[in-house]
Amino acid sequence: MLEELKKAVYEANMLLPKYGLVTFTWGNVSQIDRETGYFAIKPSGVDYDKLTPEDMVLMDLDGNKIEGKYNPSSDTPTHLELYKAFPNIGGIVHTHSPWATSWAQAGRGIPCYGTTHADYMYGEIPCVRCLTKEEIDGAYEKNTGLLIAEYFKENDYEAVPAVLCKNHGPFTWGRDGHEAVHNAVVLEEVAKMAARCETINPQVKPAPQELQDKHYYRKHGADAYYGQK
Amino acid sequence: MLEELKKAVYEANMLLPKYGLVTFTWGNVSQIDRETGYFAIKPSGVDYDKLTPEDMVLMDLDGNKIEGKYNPSSDTPTHLELYKAFPNIGGIVHTHSPWATSWAQAGRGIPCYGTTHADYMYGEIPCVRCLTKEEIDGAYEKNTGLLIAEYFKENDYEAVPAVLCKNHGPFTWGRDGHEAVHNAVVLEEVAKMAARCETINPQVKPAPQELQDKHYYRKHGADAYYGQK
Amino acid sequence: MLEELKKAVYEANMLLPKYGLVTFTWGNVSQIDRETGYFAIKPSGVDYDKLTPEDMVLMDLDGNKIEGKYNPSSDTPTHLELYKAFPNIGGIVHTHSPWATSWAQAGRGIPCYGTTHADYMYGEIPCVRCLTKEEIDGAYEKNTGLLIAEYFKENDYEAVPAVLCKNHGPFTWGRDGHEAVHNAVVLEEVAKMAARCETINPQVKPAPQELQDKHYYRKHGADAYYGQK
Amino acid sequence: MLEELKKAVYEANMLLPKYGLVTFTWGNVSQIDRETGYFAIKPSGVDYDKLTPEDMVLMDLDGNKIEGKYNPSSDTPTHLELYKAFPNIGGIVHTHSPWATSWAQAGRGIPCYGTTHADYMYGEIPCVRCLTKEEIDGAYEKNTGLLIAEYFKENDYEAVPAVLCKNHGPFTWGRDGHEAVHNAVVLEEVAKMAARCETINPQVKPAPQELQDKHYYRKHGADAYYGQK
Repeated sequence: MLEELKKAVYEANMLLPKYGLVTFTWGNVSQIDRETGYFAIKPSGVDYDKLTPEDMVLMDLDGNKIEGKYNPSSDTPTHLELYKAFPNIGGIVHTHSPWATSWAQAGRGIPCYGTTHADYMYGEIPCVRCLTKEEIDGAYEKNTGLLIAEYFKENDYEAVPAVLCKNHGPFTWGRDGHEAVHNAVVLEEVAKMAARCETINPQVKPAPQELQDKHYYRKHGADAYYGQK
Repeated sequence: MLEELKKAVYEANMLLPKYGLVTFTWGNVSQIDRETGYFAIKPSGVDYDKLTPEDMVLMDLDGNKIEGKYNPSSDTPTHLELYKAFPNIGGIVHTHSPWATSWAQAGRGIPCYGTTHADYMYGEIPCVRCLTKEEIDGAYEKNTGLLIAEYFKENDYEAVPAVLCKNHGPFTWGRDGHEAVHNAVVLEEVAKMAARCETINPQVKPAPQELQDKHYYRKHGADAYYGQK
Repeated sequence: MLEELKKAVYEANMLLPKYGLVTFTWGNVSQIDRETGYFAIKPSGVDYDKLTPEDMVLMDLDGNKIEGKYNPSSDTPTHLELYKAFPNIGGIVHTHSPWATSWAQAGRGIPCYGTTHADYMYGEIPCVRCLTKEEIDGAYEKNTGLLIAEYFKENDYEAVPAVLCKNHGPFTWGRDGHEAVHNAVVLEEVAKMAARCETINPQVKPAPQELQDKHYYRKHGADAYYGQK
Repeated sequence: MLEELKKAVYEANMLLPKYGLVTFTWGNVSQIDRETGYFAIKPSGVDYDKLTPEDMVLMDLDGNKIEGKYNPSSDTPTHLELYKAFPNIGGIVHTHSPWATSWAQAGRGIPCYGTTHADYMYGEIPCVRCLTKEEIDGAYEKNTGLLIAEYFKENDYEAVPAVLCKNHGPFTWGRDGHEAVHNAVVLEEVAKMAARCETINPQVKPAPQELQDKHYYRKHGADAYYGQK
């Protein structure tokens, strides 16, 4: 059932170790089929070098397991809330990639210091607050998703396909699992360069708005002219 | 004799270069068979790419060599004291992995800044003091073990399976050699992110206690729900 | 047509991932044939692992596509202006290599702190200002080239074959594409060591002029004695 | 002639890229045969992946080329002076390895912050001053060697087999070329950890003298007990 979806999710998951974004099992990718409302996600705590496409777990948006011999990732309720809140996305990634996680631990959003950032993310990549004790002791992973969704009620989740969760780590998303992984790689690279850039010049300011606009719209929207489109 | 044990110790040692935790021969893994009270450990100063399972040295808890053509690691007396002090562990790792060693040289414990740390280690990873001149000039390696054991008389060695020795480097442990290596990898990753995190935000504070609790108990104890258990 | 040129440009482009200078498609190399005035350049947004020599796009110095099924790199107008302004160069590279880009984002030129730098680049590697809103909203990539060219009207583009564009990233050049890549590698290495050097000693000063002279002229000009020339 | 020597020097040179100590041709290893007084050294500016044992250049201690089709490394006069000043060494390495070079550019010696350093180098690794204009404009490479030799007239070159040349980079030595490379790897690792350690704790002090003594003499001298000796 939905074999294509499980294969795509498997392949997107295998990109995480390829791009150096995960240690051990510290990451997961999911992808949704909007027609059925089912999404496939990595099983919890299974090593990447033992994964197969059949190991992917199929879930519905009420949190029921539709198919799969394993438990889904413990972060599944976060993915689920994001799929409900962001109707135009098709894939989600969570990792503990070291540079992005360092910013998340530091509790700071990543300012847009240059065109590498502006090419993919429009403005600062936000760091949402830590959950309260009540939110943590309750449905922790679900509440993580609700908190992210709340932030993006007033912000454009398509223009900034990434978020840092304070004291935790990043989530990214995209049209499918593959694009979400792509954005996770961009985030890690941008996080690294922003940290180094602040060390080189502690007074550094974000890039001028007009440059951010230029690079973002060079790749996105009706007037995009990057690539072969 | 105890061929399975030597093979396991050999394989755990070979993970150290695989995970980038050692340069040259700067590390060693041991594992104990609690029934016989014998433990196997890497020989001293032998290159990883020349090691074989048969090269592992078998020791008893009085420090006698039971079997092996080589001298055991010069850190053997430290391992021995830890096996005596920590009855529930089965494996020990010592390395000079660069990030953990940088913290040890700096003489600072590693605060828990996020969930990557909290998933494995409950609270700050301690840095024990440098040995005194008397302790160094005496049975140095044994005294290193006694000092670590002393610290954990009043702390939970199972909740924090790692320690930094000031001006020296880290030791980690676990149920067996493999898990001790796993914890050494976690320690190195956590040490790296904590250092970067402090550079990104010099005023950073440890993660809230309730978040540390949540992540630690998500993976440990009766209510754990991470993975396939 | 100009098959040798396209092959050389293809091979120079493939060196970018080999030397770790690019993530995804964030870089491009071109090389010019001064006789015909045509230059070959990487197509826009095509993955490195799918590139072939035939994919290279052939352009003239008026910006007309002479040959090629793909759109040329979106940075083509920058390359074009540099070929017009720098008559003695044959190749150009643009990347977002992380250390050089961190300096560019920081808005600082890279001081010459040692002989590694002095062996290849004579004096500080400049960081040119951000474009104005008018320059950005107009012919952005062409204006980038014009700004670099303007800086080098009063500076020696052969003695310093590299520039940082503020909030963006580096361009390097050389006698051909291969040498331009070589200079891009040097720039990244020099940028890394300069940043670390300032952390180790925040009061560090540039290397004495006589040392800079010695190393530069050991490799360049009539009295060079490095290598097998 | 001296084929064994040339083979050993070739193999030691090939370790430099293996251990990540060189970019392009930025390094060289030599080894001396004390009986004949001839030493073999890498040719100048020849790529590592094209080197063969036959390419090694044979020199005598008066600076005459005894054998070889290539020019010797431009650093040959430095090697020569060190062989004359340090009678107990058999091999020398020069690199621009990034962490050691960052300290050299910063103009600081590397304090002994821990046992990784103390195991190989007894006390601070010195940074010798920049040459004067007269020394640079004269026999530059020879004067580099003389300056290092001058420093070690009052210091023990066997206890500290490494030096940093201000604004330039490191030299290391040992009983043969292989051991000199080993020390170059140690130096790079120690330089990296010392820099990070100062960032983690800006008030850090060198390791206590008794610990430095313990670790150095655990590996060196009559009472050494590390390894299989």
